[in-house]
Amino acid sequence: MTRTERLIDDVRSRILSGALAPGDRLASVRRYAALMMVSPSTVVEAYERLAAEGVIRARRGSGFYVSGISLAARSLTDNTTPLLRDVDPFWVSRQSLDAGKEELTPGCGWLPADWMPNEALRKGLRQLTRLPDTLLTDYGSTHGSTTLRRLLLARFAQEGLSASMEQLMLTGSGSQALDLLCRFLLRPGDSVVVDDPCYFNFQALLRTHQVNIVGVPYTSTGPDIAVFEQVLATVRPRLYITNSALHNPTGACLSAQTAYRVLSAAAAHETLIIEDDIFADFEPEPSPRLAIPDGLDRVIRMGSFSKTLSASVRCGYIACRAEWIEGLADLQIATNFGGPSPLSSELIANVLGGGSYRKHLNEVTTRLDRARKEAIEHLDALGITPWMVPRGGFYLWCRLPEGIDSTAIARRCRQDGVVLAPGNVFSVTQSAAEFLRFNVAHLNTRVFSVLKRAIAEHQNK
Amino acid sequence: MTRTERLIDDVRSRILSGALAPGDRLASVRRYAALMMVSPSTVVEAYERLAAEGVIRARRGSGFYVSGISLAARSLTDNTTPLLRDVDPFWVSRQSLDAGKEELTPGCGWLPADWMPNEALRKGLRQLTRLPDTLLTDYGSTHGSTTLRRLLLARFAQEGLSASMEQLMLTGSGSQALDLLCRFLLRPGDSVVVDDPCYFNFQALLRTHQVNIVGVPYTSTGPDIAVFEQVLATVRPRLYITNSALHNPTGACLSAQTAYRVLSAAAAHETLIIEDDIFADFEPEPSPRLAIPDGLDRVIRMGSFSKTLSASVRCGYIACRAEWIEGLADLQIATNFGGPSPLSSELIANVLGGGSYRKHLNEVTTRLDRARKEAIEHLDALGITPWMVPRGGFYLWCRLPEGIDSTAIARRCRQDGVVLAPGNVFSVTQSAAEFLRFNVAHLNTRVFSVLKRAIAEHQNK
Repeated sequence: MTRTERLIDDVRSRILSGALAPGDRLASVRRYAALMMVSPSTVVEAYERLAAEGVIRARRGSGFYVSGISLAARSLTDNTTPLLRDVDPFWVSRQSLDAGKEELTPGCGWLPADWMPNEALRKGLRQLTRLPDTLLTDYGSTHGSTTLRRLLLARFAQEGLSASMEQLMLTGSGSQALDLLCRFLLRPGDSVVVDDPCYFNFQALLRTHQVNIVGVPYTSTGPDIAVFEQVLATVRPRLYITNSALHNPTGACLSAQTAYRVLSAAAAHETLIIEDDIFADFEPEPSPRLAIPDGLDRVIRMGSFSKTLSASVRCGYIACRAEWIEGLADLQIATNFGGPSPLSSELIANVLGGGSYRKHLNEVTTRLDRARKEAIEHLDALGITPWMVPRGGFYLWCRLPEGIDSTAIARRCRQDGVVLAPGNVFSVTQSAAEFLRFNVAHLNTRVFSVLKRAIAEHQNK
Repeated sequence: MTRTERLIDDVRSRILSGALAPGDRLASVRRYAALMMVSPSTVVEAYERLAAEGVIRARRGSGFYVSGISLAARSLTDNTTPLLRDVDPFWVSRQSLDAGKEELTPGCGWLPADWMPNEALRKGLRQLTRLPDTLLTDYGSTHGSTTLRRLLLARFAQEGLSASMEQLMLTGSGSQALDLLCRFLLRPGDSVVVDDPCYFNFQALLRTHQVNIVGVPYTSTGPDIAVFEQVLATVRPRLYITNSALHNPTGACLSAQTAYRVLSAAAAHETLIIEDDIFADFEPEPSPRLAIPDGLDRVIRMGSFSKTLSASVRCGYIACRAEWIEGLADLQIATNFGGPSPLSSELIANVLGGGSYRKHLNEVTTRLDRARKEAIEHLDALGITPWMVPRGGFYLWCRLPEGIDSTAIARRCRQDGVVLAPGNVFSVTQSAAEFLRFNVAHLNTRVFSVLKRAIAEHQNK
């Protein structure tokens, strides 16, 4: 290790340990040289190399500062996920969740922060300060806030799903709802059917449960029902997991006919169904659901508030047969000592029950309709075409020009600070190489230009 | 079913479905009689029976109202856990978490709400309203808030534990930290050593992981080291889980000598150790830890803020080898799409980093010292003696008069609205039948009188 390298290491480790935070000023060249017993030119070289890497930044006449992205965050990105790592079902999550402020995330699964009901949330937070001490400091009850559960039941009733308090529990998040259900219902070696393509985290989660994952091709009206029926008859899966409304990644909705045949096949072969209703609030009017005709017998409904209310306020729910709730609540105690933060549940109930939430949804829907239309036009200019035009939500599942591999494009765009969602992370059978999932709320001219260059490069190869 | 029973059922189901909420007024006798086509006297009878059960309440001259405890909450308590259910590791959790306001919980594992830093939390909540939109609505990063992790590293450094940002991640809760670690480190059939007695939820959690749980007797200076060494040599467990400081349920602290031998045995037999440091902030001065001499090599530190800051604001952490963090972060994405709410992390960082937290700890410590002293006196009068007197925290592990079974006492007191923590829920070998764990902050004269009566009844049998 040269003297310069030793200095670089020293600065890095101070940033990693938190001793130097983003924005902190580094020691002057002269002072640091004296401290480390090296020549000033060695310090200058070290600082310049660190500046070139973006770890620190020079400000004219004022010295060097730790840059905005902390090295710790960089090291997460640099050593682990991004380019070295396989493009697996975790790829999009890691890239999007840990994206820096200057990175663009048209592959992510949430709205930009300024599209969310921030004022209602701030108002809700102020109301939390007036809650009794117990809600500020105690654990919650095992089934979660009665206020929020009552609101959910009222919403269920509006769409024709009748359920009682005993059939409903709150969970730490939507993903946690699904994880609890998998723990409760599955044993290693069980078979589980998912849509192909499906939300990549279904696969990531199911892999941790060591089950056999079977993909059924997804059509614009739900799973390919002939294949679905055949798989159920031959594989006899324990479970089918799906989004009936505004399916992730395609944006498609289940038709009433497919819903009926899915339910019949599930009944005939004793397959249970988890219907993840997370995109429900984006629908102008509700499309067919499995849980409603089934009446929460074989179908389990789950969801969260992350997409239209807040992803920071963690909370999910499960509605199912009353006799399963106790076992699920036990599991949630063992693994999380209960469900969501009582403060989070109150905050969500506040916003959800407030008058402005419906107005917020209307505004978001209008904005999304416009963004979707513009996205389709811009993508068309790049030879990228939507598989279908969804009736709501922010996803657009698109086919790339022929011969272009979406994983290669995603890797390339990542280098230019754009996080995309390549088709195969959604596909159990790895048969979606020519697709990308776009989030229309995160598209802009920089995304299109980075994408255009990447496609051109690959077409010229 | 008689007419009266039909009316009772009808009211119950309206409450269960949420159509009638606590505080709502029921239809007048005359109106309900007309509606249901029965005589007014039948309605009066039905209302009076419901009132006798506490489901509704009469207000003089103004009719009947749904009572404070909703029937839904009652039905959770009545149909599921309490008396019908076995006194298993879930018993205390369920009873305490779902206890009604009028019930006393000297068996629970947290401080009363008015002992917690409520004003600092309210101040913190007000500060949250000034955060940028992204913190209000976005998912968090995969490793959690940099601010809170930096604060934790500074606290670690103060006690002599050096760790870097890359070795630290935030989790949805302390229990979730432990669950993630078990998922990451264990396979079904592995052996895991716990203290006997130990925190009951360690057992509940380990059972979900289908591992072989081995208990080692706990002494006032840590595990019985001769037995511990023998178990490690013969069983070769993958993992040992413990609280080194203010051990739950005994309140004992590890001695430096035992710490050294535990670490040596673990190194010799390749056993990993999880040190749950959840009670750390109750210690006047830090007692020996395993993680500090080990330097986070074989020992994993985890903890949360539930005991001294807030259990409602869910957040935990894991500090361990840097190379494990990525796998743990992936698991947390798959199962929870990330860690704690960014709002929760900010709130905790606010309180933890604020000037009043140290003062709060001092006050709580003084109050606990007094409560512990008083508890010992009062329990002594009932022939109940502490196994040892802890140097901090709220637990007091006590032996009942000879021949009295704590499970029977706990069941009996539960009928009188007092939730106790009977010894055997903490014991893998079911060898703690004569013990009860008391929370000195939840003791009062009603607890002592209910306890006195229960003991007298059993002595007279």
